[in-house]
Parts: sequence; structure tokens; C-alpha cells
Amino acid sequence: MGVEIERKFLVRDGAEVPAGRESEVRQGYLVTGPEGAEARVRQQGDACSLTVKRGTGLVRGEWETPLDAGQFAALWPATEHARIHKTRRIVPLGPDEAVVDTYHGRLAGLRTVEVEFADPERAAAFTPPPWFGPEVTDRPDLKNQRLATATAPPRA
Amino acid sequence: MGVEIERKFLVRDGAEVPAGRESEVRQGYLVTGPEGAEARVRQQGDACSLTVKRGTGLVRGEWETPLDAGQFAALWPATEHARIHKTRRIVPLGPDEAVVDTYHGRLAGLRTVEVEFADPERAAAFTPPPWFGPEVTDRPDLKNQRLATATAPPRA
Repeated sequence: MGVEIERKFLVRDGAEVPAGRESEVRQGYLVTGPEGAEARVRQQGDACSLTVKRGTGLVRGEWETPLDAGQFAALWPATEHARIHKTRRIVPLGPDEAVVDTYHGRLAGLRTVEVEFADPERAAAFTPPPWFGPEVTDRPDLKNQRLATATAPPRA
Repeated sequence: MGVEIERKFLVRDGAEVPAGRESEVRQGYLVTGPEGAEARVRQQGDACSLTVKRGTGLVRGEWETPLDAGQFAALWPATEHARIHKTRRIVPLGPDEAVVDTYHGRLAGLRTVEVEFADPERAAAFTPPPWFGPEVTDRPDLKNQRLATATAPPRA
């Protein structure tokens, strides 16, 4: 089990995001449960994976395993009710990395950015660069699990 | 997506179950959601698998893929809160098969039997043999998902 400590922001409206390597991400939710529990499959570039999460907010439990293409294909149809398609860009940010997600389809217009930290102290000390917009770490409507069944981008 | 049509019974108290091939089954729930949705991993003999189910009662949607030992090992710790250990025996029953589960640990004493059918007509026409006890197809407290967090066998 790993523990994630991350902060999430909107990208500031109209801001240009610095360059970085990009990949296409398709993810779908197999089952979502109470208190943020979820089992989801993801295809990022050629790599497929299954992730289980439990817990909410700043600290969550997470278990993950790679899937081969056949396993992904067997499970993907079970996610038809809850899917997301986004372009992910990794932007270097000093010692950290910003993970910028630009959403497609019915969520077009939504751009978020997440930064992961080694400990809560570093998370608290982080100063967002100017292209970051409002912090949304605790906004339940901007969790990927909720976005997967949203019909339009949530309001900023 | 496959569709399961099955009926479930208790094994009659004190009845001897006919012979059949046996295997040890350990299964754990990664996430359980509303309306019977679940994602679970299972180890049966040497074979590991991941199954997603959705829906309740006589007809459920089901998606499954095999897992290798490393994938199972990565996900099993996520099920610590909801596990089952049972011995499964497959008993030939004319054209059908009875799947008899004898539970262990905190569920010791519980024995159930399930029969799967090709269509609802065959399910309705089925005549249980004398070693079958009360039908429990619709008993929510005898679903494996619920048993996985039960502290004792439910009452007959």
C-alpha cells in the first residue's frame, strides 16, 4: 500500500501551460463505493493498469498492478457507465512535477493540475506558479470518479 | 459481458453432500458499491482472477479476467477488510452442476449450494435434490459480498 499526498488546482483561465511530455489517458471506473473507494482501469499510451483507492482528501490508500492488453480489453466494457478521456502533460516544477490534465468530450474546457509531495510539510509549503488557478484539492465534484459520470465541466 | 442465472440454497442441516472435486477458494473484495456492484479478486487452487459484477437477484452482469500471481499479490492487501475462505466442491447433478461452498474461519458451519442455468425457464423448472435446504437466492445477508464482512454465519 502506498500513500498519496497531493494538492490539486484548476489551471488559470486562459493561461498557457508550460511544455512537457504528453500522453493520452482513458480511464474507466469498474466500481465506486462509499468514502471515495474505487477500482478503476486506465490506458495511458500503451500501458494499462488497475488501481484500487480508499479514503478521501489529502491522504489516500492506493494499490496498483499493470494489466496486459487482453486483461484491459476484458474489463473495459464494465466501465461504460463511467469513463474519462484526457490528455496528460507532465510539467517540471523545480524539484516537483505538475501533472496537467486537459479533459475531452463532454468535459471539454476543464483543465486541472496536480502536484504530489513526499510529506505533508512539503505539501503545505508549496507556492503555486502564476498559471495555477484556484485550489480544488477538496472539491468532490472535481474528483475523477465524479467527473466520470458528470455531463459537463463543473463550474470553477 | 456475461449474464448469470442462478439459484442458491442452504445445504440441509446435517445432510451429507455427494462426492465431487474440491478446491480451496480465497476471495477478497477490492470495492463494493451500490446495487450489488463489486470488484473482487479470487485465488482458487493455483488460478487467480479478478471479477466485476453489477446488478442483483437472478440476473447479474459479470466481467472477468485471469490474474497472474504477481498481480494477485499486489491487489490482495487491498481486501484486508473483506475476505472469505471456503472449500468449493463441484457435484454433478444430471445435466447441471451444484457448486457447494463450505465456509471456514468466523463463518464455520455455513454451507451453501448454487446451480447455474442457461435460461430463466430451466431455472424455474429445477427440482432441488433432498440434500438441498431452504432457497436463499434473494437473501442479501448470504451474498458473498456481505459474508465477507460478517462476524458469524447468518441464521438459517
